[in-house]
Amino acid sequence: MPLRGHMVIGQSGGPTAVINQSLAAAVLEAKRHRAIREIWGARNGMAGILKGEFVDLRKEPAAVWKAVARTPAAALGSARKKPSSEECVRAVEIFRRHEVRYFFYIGGNDSAESAHLIQQEAARSGYEMACYHIPKTIDNDLLENDHTPGYGSAARFVACAVMGDTLDCRSLPGVKIDVIMGRHAGFLTAAAALARRHPDDGPHLIYLPERPFSPERFAASVEAVVQQFGFAVVAVSEGIADEKGQPIAAGFTGEKDSHGNVQLSGTGALGDWLAAELRRRTSITRVRADTFGYLQRSFPAVVSETDAREAWQAGAVAVRLAVQRGDSGTVALVRRTGPRYGVQFERRELHQVARATRSMPDDFIAPSGHDVTEAFLEYARPLIGPLPVPGRLRMKPVSLTP
Amino acid sequence: MPLRGHMVIGQSGGPTAVINQSLAAAVLEAKRHRAIREIWGARNGMAGILKGEFVDLRKEPAAVWKAVARTPAAALGSARKKPSSEECVRAVEIFRRHEVRYFFYIGGNDSAESAHLIQQEAARSGYEMACYHIPKTIDNDLLENDHTPGYGSAARFVACAVMGDTLDCRSLPGVKIDVIMGRHAGFLTAAAALARRHPDDGPHLIYLPERPFSPERFAASVEAVVQQFGFAVVAVSEGIADEKGQPIAAGFTGEKDSHGNVQLSGTGALGDWLAAELRRRTSITRVRADTFGYLQRSFPAVVSETDAREAWQAGAVAVRLAVQRGDSGTVALVRRTGPRYGVQFERRELHQVARATRSMPDDFIAPSGHDVTEAFLEYARPLIGPLPVPGRLRMKPVSLTP
Repeated sequence: MPLRGHMVIGQSGGPTAVINQSLAAAVLEAKRHRAIREIWGARNGMAGILKGEFVDLRKEPAAVWKAVARTPAAALGSARKKPSSEECVRAVEIFRRHEVRYFFYIGGNDSAESAHLIQQEAARSGYEMACYHIPKTIDNDLLENDHTPGYGSAARFVACAVMGDTLDCRSLPGVKIDVIMGRHAGFLTAAAALARRHPDDGPHLIYLPERPFSPERFAASVEAVVQQFGFAVVAVSEGIADEKGQPIAAGFTGEKDSHGNVQLSGTGALGDWLAAELRRRTSITRVRADTFGYLQRSFPAVVSETDAREAWQAGAVAVRLAVQRGDSGTVALVRRTGPRYGVQFERRELHQVARATRSMPDDFIAPSGHDVTEAFLEYARPLIGPLPVPGRLRMKPVSLTP
Repeated sequence: MPLRGHMVIGQSGGPTAVINQSLAAAVLEAKRHRAIREIWGARNGMAGILKGEFVDLRKEPAAVWKAVARTPAAALGSARKKPSSEECVRAVEIFRRHEVRYFFYIGGNDSAESAHLIQQEAARSGYEMACYHIPKTIDNDLLENDHTPGYGSAARFVACAVMGDTLDCRSLPGVKIDVIMGRHAGFLTAAAALARRHPDDGPHLIYLPERPFSPERFAASVEAVVQQFGFAVVAVSEGIADEKGQPIAAGFTGEKDSHGNVQLSGTGALGDWLAAELRRRTSITRVRADTFGYLQRSFPAVVSETDAREAWQAGAVAVRLAVQRGDSGTVALVRRTGPRYGVQFERRELHQVARATRSMPDDFIAPSGHDVTEAFLEYARPLIGPLPVPGRLRMKPVSLTP
């Protein structure tokens, strides 16, 4: 006998272009199960749960779900809030009082931790309920997952942006630094490499949080690229850190969320600092820095169809697992072996993805420390979908008669 | 009898997503005219002309032109170079020595000025040639033009970006500042307003170079929006200036090109300064700033089809005018009157678009000074093409029994 009761679903952490695919799929799947009675959305994640701010999702019409699914950012509102143990007690009390037996939380590892804390409090207080985490993060840093919903679309944006930026920088030569999101994991920055088609295409250098960043080596490498190609496009993760593991950007902002994460995005300070270091250490005059910022995760017109489909499936699978098993857990995307790309969705325990994150494996990072390997490109290509193919003139020089 | 001789074409100034449409169209049109013999592309605009660095464009295959036309940024390379009078003499000498009778220069008002200087030197030295300017600029600030090729695609990117950013900022409320290109003219920043569909949609405030910027009024207005909607998305032109007309951003960078333009793009300094001012003057804690940077003009996956078509036509018309008339001039996009959108291409003298630029007309700017009018929206809508339509939940609150 499955658990019978109401369902609460919430969204948490940084939005993505496809997080609403998971929401729509979970709600439409829930409507197919008689064990689930009312379907409530928590406004702004944990914040809404603690205030009992729920919206009725059962009555949203199909056309709304269709449109919401392909709309970036969290339709229910999001939050960066780690519940305290007292707040977990309150949340479970609210669930108990209103007969909520199903709780789904779409988010990254911090959100999995929040779901885990709620689940532990429910178990401690003897309230039977199913708590499922549904994976989402553009950082692609969840343990147990081959990749995460949200990454493919953000990676697609990054690859398109760096492709355009390379064309732009070849037009008006100089050095272009592109600062890309990713707190501890370089996956999103690495996706810039997918923009390359020709040997002289950018990004010519890729700096990841997984390798210590040295301004001296950075300046020397950029100078070498400019010598070779006449221009340089450099992809830099916002999370690059020095030899001691201190994030370079941490010196520029002081803001922290309740999970202890320092604000890295929403400022151009790191890019500007890197540009200034280059000007100071080299004789290169035209140096520009752009920080891709929130566009990476919220741009409405650039979505990976694979990513959108997988985000939908992850939401539906979580609801099926919760109803069938009546337990708690998370859905992991596991890549099938074989020549054709495909994933299957497997159940994992919440503690397996909560808190800790994964970084780029060593075999995805070139020995130089400032590039990716072919293994990474093979890994990432199916996740972002086919890219635009830029044209290029053959540029046959004219020999003028003097 | 048309002039008979070779043709040189160059690209100049900041690239756009559709500048290669004009290049491809001009070359393919030129191939249809027997008066034009060889077709040479100048590498990096004026710089290539002065060094005699030409590439043979006649033999590029049709498939290459098709691909290049829809590739952002200048396929021939660009330059920000105003020729000195001595350099004009040299350029005309090169044209004379190699029997170049047709010169086409794709660019903004600075490029029209360069073409005009060449044309004047040719006339002075008695060398008969046709110099045509082909309009291009994402700033949309050319005189005599209803709008310019390049603007529609950049405006489309900006509208999409602000649409996504509004969804993102509603998910995780706070203040989001988006810094948008536009040195003296606010057209591109104003295009952010096309992202709105609902009364609470951003951008809630729009700051243009055409109205003096006051940090005090800015802070008070943002606070009022946050009070009303719980979050605020603000579009700010990189060219905003104080009461004395001094660009705010000029304090942060010192670099200038040979036309005397200060570098405004390629740094996040203005956005970070605005965010700091807001934090200092208000009690708002979550403030983020993104600078859209070069993505606005070079993103490969977001192009306005109207813009692409008009850029193509402008290139073809310039060649037809030059061959038919044997004189010099520029092509202006003039909007047809009537209920359906359409443009016609009219010839203007080079001096009519060279040097000076136009700003947003007063009836496009709201009396508040920090918004646009319906007249602007009607003007801009046909230029960017249909936008994605975000979905929105109805958010019916659940009344919980206590």
